[in-house]
Amino acid sequence: MISKERLEQRIELLAQIGKTKEGGVSRIALTKEYREGLELISEWMKEAGLNVRLDQAGNLIGRKEGDVPGLKAVALGSHVDSVGNGGKYDGTVGVIAGIEVAQHLKEEGISNMRPLEVIAFCEEEGSRFQSGGVFGSRAMAGKLTKEDLKVTDSNGDSRYKILKDFGLDADNIDKAVRKNTEFELYLEMHVEQGPILIREKAPVGIVTAITGLSLTEVVFEGEPNHVGATPMDLRYDALLGASETALAVEEIVNKSGGNAVGTAATMDVQPSQVNIIPGRVSTVIDIRDTDLESREAILDTLEKRIKEICERRNLQYTITSKLKANPAKSAPHILETMRKESQELDMKTFEMPSGGGHDAQLMAEITDMGMIFIRSENGSHNPKEFAKAEDITLGTNLLANTAIHYMNK
Amino acid sequence: MISKERLEQRIELLAQIGKTKEGGVSRIALTKEYREGLELISEWMKEAGLNVRLDQAGNLIGRKEGDVPGLKAVALGSHVDSVGNGGKYDGTVGVIAGIEVAQHLKEEGISNMRPLEVIAFCEEEGSRFQSGGVFGSRAMAGKLTKEDLKVTDSNGDSRYKILKDFGLDADNIDKAVRKNTEFELYLEMHVEQGPILIREKAPVGIVTAITGLSLTEVVFEGEPNHVGATPMDLRYDALLGASETALAVEEIVNKSGGNAVGTAATMDVQPSQVNIIPGRVSTVIDIRDTDLESREAILDTLEKRIKEICERRNLQYTITSKLKANPAKSAPHILETMRKESQELDMKTFEMPSGGGHDAQLMAEITDMGMIFIRSENGSHNPKEFAKAEDITLGTNLLANTAIHYMNK
Repeated sequence: MISKERLEQRIELLAQIGKTKEGGVSRIALTKEYREGLELISEWMKEAGLNVRLDQAGNLIGRKEGDVPGLKAVALGSHVDSVGNGGKYDGTVGVIAGIEVAQHLKEEGISNMRPLEVIAFCEEEGSRFQSGGVFGSRAMAGKLTKEDLKVTDSNGDSRYKILKDFGLDADNIDKAVRKNTEFELYLEMHVEQGPILIREKAPVGIVTAITGLSLTEVVFEGEPNHVGATPMDLRYDALLGASETALAVEEIVNKSGGNAVGTAATMDVQPSQVNIIPGRVSTVIDIRDTDLESREAILDTLEKRIKEICERRNLQYTITSKLKANPAKSAPHILETMRKESQELDMKTFEMPSGGGHDAQLMAEITDMGMIFIRSENGSHNPKEFAKAEDITLGTNLLANTAIHYMNK
Repeated sequence: MISKERLEQRIELLAQIGKTKEGGVSRIALTKEYREGLELISEWMKEAGLNVRLDQAGNLIGRKEGDVPGLKAVALGSHVDSVGNGGKYDGTVGVIAGIEVAQHLKEEGISNMRPLEVIAFCEEEGSRFQSGGVFGSRAMAGKLTKEDLKVTDSNGDSRYKILKDFGLDADNIDKAVRKNTEFELYLEMHVEQGPILIREKAPVGIVTAITGLSLTEVVFEGEPNHVGATPMDLRYDALLGASETALAVEEIVNKSGGNAVGTAATMDVQPSQVNIIPGRVSTVIDIRDTDLESREAILDTLEKRIKEICERRNLQYTITSKLKANPAKSAPHILETMRKESQELDMKTFEMPSGGGHDAQLMAEITDMGMIFIRSENGSHNPKEFAKAEDITLGTNLLANTAIHYMNK
């Protein structure tokens, strides 16, 4: 049986490792606290009948072989690293739920034709190195480049050095790559990082797709003149160009419909001094959509709008694409199975896209993917994030029944 | 005769004191460099036949008595302190021109019924203490408060201590106050800090009024949620509220007509992190107008607009007035005299308001005021500010003839 008490207890136990005075968790990837977390997880994996190994990229993998040799595995997973002073649910609930599924198989004597893997991916959060996170799942999907080992943390230590110091065989990190012939599918349970399930009064979400992130830096250059002595018609105010652009992002995204979201998230104003018209402003704009074409269309429209704004205001500008990730659709047959299983469990669910990126997005590069969201308060990445044990238990039941369906299919 | 060579040479000599490697000047008020500057100015004042004294507020005053006892004085002045790495013309040209007028009287044997004063005001720039500058002219106009002596510089030293250390009798700073019975009028020559005279191809400007500055801080508070996981209709983005407000400032000021200018000059975005919707933005808005009623109407309209924006966007906001200065009109009879004198000198002038604040604005509290602007390139407060010796000489001629007109009237 999926045990609410055990799930709750394990979340609390794991949250003790790296606990902050605000009641949050700092368990940054590949630190002492991270190792302690992996040790605890390993014990639980072993108790659930899994054989445990740490791969070259720091992914902790618990595996139970299937009854029928040669079949592809059903993989469940998420991550146990956190951001600095983050919450106790982000990532951890997916790993603990995966282990709970294995424990459930063992306790109930449920057989599995296919192998089961439970994976705690290394460094999902991009907090330590400035390279966008999802490191372990990128390694598994064969998406790492040489640059990924060269990036440094705030102490100036390279990821290569940190991996080696952690005891990992970073020189053979290619061995962490898994083939698409190894997996039947990958399922991930994660707290929703937004307010949609609360609004929909649904404890559990079925994720239809993961949005494809894009980060675009725009720099506006005008002239830093005297605010009093420069008439309105002889100004080249970079901040007004940036302000129009921030509002244009909102307008264009709203018009595009669908699942797109867009944000001018950072704005750096120079000189930002009383008495001087802002001469230079840079902003990083985040645009995401579950539909790649729609996202690219939004970016095109935005670029045209920035050109129009800057020509009208006599501003110079540069637009630089900093990052683009592909959206990933959940496999239709997984959605169908989850719908059926949740009905059988008499569970209210809501189907929705994921606006945040997840390891599942990378696993989708090598196998079919499905995700379950748990209703969560106060967003994520802060000590106040909170998911009810009842909701986590419902989600774990859906995860277990979906996994069991595929393990014997 | 007003000597172009002497004006040019003195500007260069004064610029040697506090010269920066960029070719600018750092002669912050009440520093060693400032004292050196005052010593040089004192010599020139004495050479021009003026009796020199330093008042309790650090204003350097050169005075020549008039032929008819008991008449009010004609005062000329500006300042010789600079911002950090400022230019060599801002302030200094007005003081050097005033001394040139006295030198001209002496050399040409021109008599003066009224006394002549040439004043180098202390700390016009607000660079050392965070209290808005025009310290010396505020002292003379009787506008200081106890707080003005308590403000500290970046070393934590109070203005009181700095004044005492400079050798000034700060305990009797009230003695620097001058009565309206002492002055017939005050004239100031200053470089224009904007591009209007360049656009008008006029070497000299006649200032019709000095705008009344207002600084207003607006803080917008929303919610710092996840940029990917928060749908567009569940966002409380403080930066979008601030962006609309920055654009509203421009729109409202443009609609108001007249001499108003308005700027969102600073913008501080929190957290300004990729992945997080800006939860808190503060901005300081500068609105100036030569017409007080018009400025207050703009501020009222802006406040209503901010309320509308924040209600629509579900943002909290606070509006705090940080500083308000009264506009000052030039005395109509001085404008009339300047027009007549410039015609007699066959000089092209352009009548315009001053968008920057000046010591003249404070002197207007106790006497009639007039100002002459000199065409200047590259704005002000930077090493590149530049005024041609020809233009400075034209302006000094106008200053001299206007002063002589009043000294014998």
